[in-house]
Amino acid sequence: SGLVHVKNPYLDSMEEDVLYHLDLGTKTHNLPAMFGDIKFVCVGGSPNRMRAFAQFMHKELGLAGDGEDLADICAGTDRYAMYRAGPVLSISHGMGIPSISIMLHELIKLLHHAKCRDVTIIRIGTSGGLGIEAGSVVITDTAVDASFKPRFEQVVLDDVVVRSTELDKDLTEELLACSKEIPDFPTLIGHTMCTYDFYEGQGRLDGALCSFSSEKKLEYLKRAYAAGVRNIEMESTAFAALCGLCGLKGES
Amino acid sequence: SGLVHVKNPYLDSMEEDVLYHLDLGTKTHNLPAMFGDIKFVCVGGSPNRMRAFAQFMHKELGLAGDGEDLADICAGTDRYAMYRAGPVLSISHGMGIPSISIMLHELIKLLHHAKCRDVTIIRIGTSGGLGIEAGSVVITDTAVDASFKPRFEQVVLDDVVVRSTELDKDLTEELLACSKEIPDFPTLIGHTMCTYDFYEGQGRLDGALCSFSSEKKLEYLKRAYAAGVRNIEMESTAFAALCGLCGLKGES
Repeated sequence: SGLVHVKNPYLDSMEEDVLYHLDLGTKTHNLPAMFGDIKFVCVGGSPNRMRAFAQFMHKELGLAGDGEDLADICAGTDRYAMYRAGPVLSISHGMGIPSISIMLHELIKLLHHAKCRDVTIIRIGTSGGLGIEAGSVVITDTAVDASFKPRFEQVVLDDVVVRSTELDKDLTEELLACSKEIPDFPTLIGHTMCTYDFYEGQGRLDGALCSFSSEKKLEYLKRAYAAGVRNIEMESTAFAALCGLCGLKGES
Repeated sequence: SGLVHVKNPYLDSMEEDVLYHLDLGTKTHNLPAMFGDIKFVCVGGSPNRMRAFAQFMHKELGLAGDGEDLADICAGTDRYAMYRAGPVLSISHGMGIPSISIMLHELIKLLHHAKCRDVTIIRIGTSGGLGIEAGSVVITDTAVDASFKPRFEQVVLDDVVVRSTELDKDLTEELLACSKEIPDFPTLIGHTMCTYDFYEGQGRLDGALCSFSSEKKLEYLKRAYAAGVRNIEMESTAFAALCGLCGLKGES
């Protein structure tokens, strides 16, 4: 059917669904009218960058007006920012798995309430490259955790549930094909490693705490490279797991 | 000495320390002049709320001007917002452990470079109360994880290091004493539970995914209450662990 799958038996019996961190809701907003024709959702950490991306899409799509005055659809909250340009929604998610997870839960419910069909979601955030040319674009085939395993460990109450982190293979190939049309844009497919921490978790020597040697750091990063990791960031495993479970064609 | 302890042998030999996510640095800014007299740091998730808090402090401290035009010290980045009112710094940290950790690493280095002494740090974020009157203030004695244990599991490269999450007992009592001077402000001391997830991790029945019953949710929350948990949020264990290791007198 192409619809987004919400996997929550309680949701349909709720009189109102307040998407609290997006400042939207089923009673306060006509979600099908506002979002029913959305086909692409692009997400990234920084609100300013996601506004700039929406402005860029506005121009690329040849929409009316200069796109400079796009309104933040989530203006009533400063947790996330959301802009649209035609069928494209551009949303910020902050930094780290907990932050992107809150946004994705509410975004998935939004797409469900709006009865959107065949939605593609792409994370276009920054990341640290590993053994690749600076400025390269890495298209993720699989998101892996800090042990290079393709899994996301979600704590549900006090149980740990392991979820798959594979992304859409067709979309991966489609994006790579697109990249070939743009000259001087180094693009490759690889694993993306997702960590819970930027300093100690990614082997940085310049945090407030650093208990490992430069050698141990290099040894870890070399093992990551050997396992197929080509870039490191902080959201991809949760993104892949949630999108996969809810039937959203996702790429990072 | 009252100085902030940075536990990183590499830091002193670095020619420049760029506090990237704060848009500050040791070569671009005179950190001792800008921050050397800071005595209190208050942190919370939302940038707007932390600006409002700085404005409130500005008025409470009787500083010159109406405090309405306080400048965002991190205006060059949209990752975090930072305001000061006299000796008080007010900073946003976003949502979740990874987000607050990045900010705290760079804040601790900032206080170190600025040679601040005897700094007290207080997290004043929102949280969900457990078995207490709505609107209550919970002063955290110990931050606990989703298994109600007073620990923070930090992934360092691919090792897991367990850190203590106790907070400053004197400060806890001092804050409770302060609360007694304000009538009609229900305040109590209790454990604060920190989760990685807002929906599935905190027993919410209204996420995009929900695999547990209402009964199982209640049973979990009752066990948390029995273990001394009085509120739930998403940053306290990392906050307690980092502040404790770096000699910052912290309270949440």
